[in-house]
Amino acid sequence: MASKIGKNVVSFAQPPCVIASAAVTGKTEGEGPLAREFDACYPDDGLGKANWNEAEAELLFQAVTRAIEKGRLYRSDIDLIVAGDLLNQCTASTFGAKDFGVPFAGIFGACSTMAYAMALAALLVDGKGFDNVVAATSSHFCSAEKQFRFPLEYGGQRAQTAQRTVTGGAACVIGRGYEDIIIPRAMFGKITDYGIKDAANMGAAMAPAAARSIAEYLEDTGAEPEDFDMILTGDLGSTGTALLHELAVEQYGMDLTPVHEDCGNMIFDARKQDAHSGGSGCACSGVVVCSRILRQLKEEELRRVLFVGTGALMSPDVVLQGKTIPGIAHAVELVRR
Amino acid sequence: MASKIGKNVVSFAQPPCVIASAAVTGKTEGEGPLAREFDACYPDDGLGKANWNEAEAELLFQAVTRAIEKGRLYRSDIDLIVAGDLLNQCTASTFGAKDFGVPFAGIFGACSTMAYAMALAALLVDGKGFDNVVAATSSHFCSAEKQFRFPLEYGGQRAQTAQRTVTGGAACVIGRGYEDIIIPRAMFGKITDYGIKDAANMGAAMAPAAARSIAEYLEDTGAEPEDFDMILTGDLGSTGTALLHELAVEQYGMDLTPVHEDCGNMIFDARKQDAHSGGSGCACSGVVVCSRILRQLKEEELRRVLFVGTGALMSPDVVLQGKTIPGIAHAVELVRR
Repeated sequence: MASKIGKNVVSFAQPPCVIASAAVTGKTEGEGPLAREFDACYPDDGLGKANWNEAEAELLFQAVTRAIEKGRLYRSDIDLIVAGDLLNQCTASTFGAKDFGVPFAGIFGACSTMAYAMALAALLVDGKGFDNVVAATSSHFCSAEKQFRFPLEYGGQRAQTAQRTVTGGAACVIGRGYEDIIIPRAMFGKITDYGIKDAANMGAAMAPAAARSIAEYLEDTGAEPEDFDMILTGDLGSTGTALLHELAVEQYGMDLTPVHEDCGNMIFDARKQDAHSGGSGCACSGVVVCSRILRQLKEEELRRVLFVGTGALMSPDVVLQGKTIPGIAHAVELVRR
Repeated sequence: MASKIGKNVVSFAQPPCVIASAAVTGKTEGEGPLAREFDACYPDDGLGKANWNEAEAELLFQAVTRAIEKGRLYRSDIDLIVAGDLLNQCTASTFGAKDFGVPFAGIFGACSTMAYAMALAALLVDGKGFDNVVAATSSHFCSAEKQFRFPLEYGGQRAQTAQRTVTGGAACVIGRGYEDIIIPRAMFGKITDYGIKDAANMGAAMAPAAARSIAEYLEDTGAEPEDFDMILTGDLGSTGTALLHELAVEQYGMDLTPVHEDCGNMIFDARKQDAHSGGSGCACSGVVVCSRILRQLKEEELRRVLFVGTGALMSPDVVLQGKTIPGIAHAVELVRR
């Protein structure tokens, strides 16, 4: 049974747990600092498929397949797959999930998708209508560049505030039981628009939503930043992280620096890999959380993590039409039992 | 508290109810047979906005605003807006919902979005973490033609199997209480791919998913088609309806003809309005259900309706890449208390 805490946070009396997770990535991620955390790093970002869209769908398929296997479950044990991605009409999720023969709920949260999917899965499992729900997401550098920016062949110079879309797929199985990692609380974020119009600076578009969601979460739960071992944002990158730290102090009087980490800053080596402001894309926080973070929780290196997925709710069309880029940040708390 | 019935259906011990609903449309819908059911039919499909995308967002905004008002609620009473649409990265939902200051969960179910949103809202309300959840969707003939087919100015001839995207916004508030219309059961559909590749024949792509979801729903609940006053599919149109009736008999031994209706066949006048195979788009089933169907339930002209939203999970990119068009059908049961 769930209940509201304050206005925004939902708390679970008998928290759902994370049964298993898996993360697979492309080549560049496999050359980065987290390479050894992943279940697989494909040496060819094309994965032998006809195009980047199919490669991305395969990443999602692989992550879901491995998460189910690692949970020692069969496909028939899964009641629902909740998944989303950045491709137009979420086709990576559709084509990655369609062969499981399991009910499917497509979601759109841009780069906040992993936290959003985990929150939604936890809510549905807690409601007792579903035993095991897979939360999954994917993104691909090449499919994202093609769709959101320029054809790769064009060889465009990227802005220093731009981030590199992570090539990867991530999935976890949320269910009931006595597993080590529980989800005691979750929160859906509010759309937050600070008027950013620069599509090459997603960190700036997402930082205000992250600050707001963290502030609301802490207020509703009566927690301080230091009550967490880590407050982990999705993919603000270095530009967005600096803005988050500023906004947190100026608008909400929170000093996040002692506990804040960002998946976009973790996945690539800022000095050796040409990722500019860091990693981004749905798979950025997806593969970081579904590998290192959940492992560290399991091994008790971390005990309480607030995972705040951050998304820029934009499309190239709308940016060309002169609209702003609203952000959103969904939160899910991960605790070692 | 919810529980699983069979493998797919979730049943609510204390069913959530529909507190209020609203539907707004464009000009062509206002000239159709359901015109008098809608809360507003705008005489200018542009709604005075700078472009079709903004017009669509305004339709969603208007529907949500009116549904909240009709429920005699304030925005602050709403715990969550669940919304999705057909635009790339669901920007109609983002821009239509962003000014409410309410947590937001973006979903993607193509034209099945209204049933999907209602099912999800009911599940979340039932889980007790949310008191009032708005389920909303929108579509717009012009934004859809531009994105999925040809620029309007091109004046392309449309295939007879093609459907006309409904211009409209629809929303309902799902909550707990003693309202007349309850949602006793809901079901998420499975992605169903019969290998259709013709993007001008969405009815054919969606009909197999509709047949499957209806068959699974009836099996899990032990019901017969005649137990319902109406089994209402989303937007199969005349082509898809004929295919559904065939498939239902051939594959599942169900005769749906006595109780089956389709929103795509209801919204336009097939003889007088140039809609070819009928209406489509997220708003098609959205505005039909959020006006006529819920009114008929309230006035006891209908007592038990199985609303099966149907969606074609395709993007123009993926169709050009030679992929098939998978369908999905989410179901929500609407009952007069």
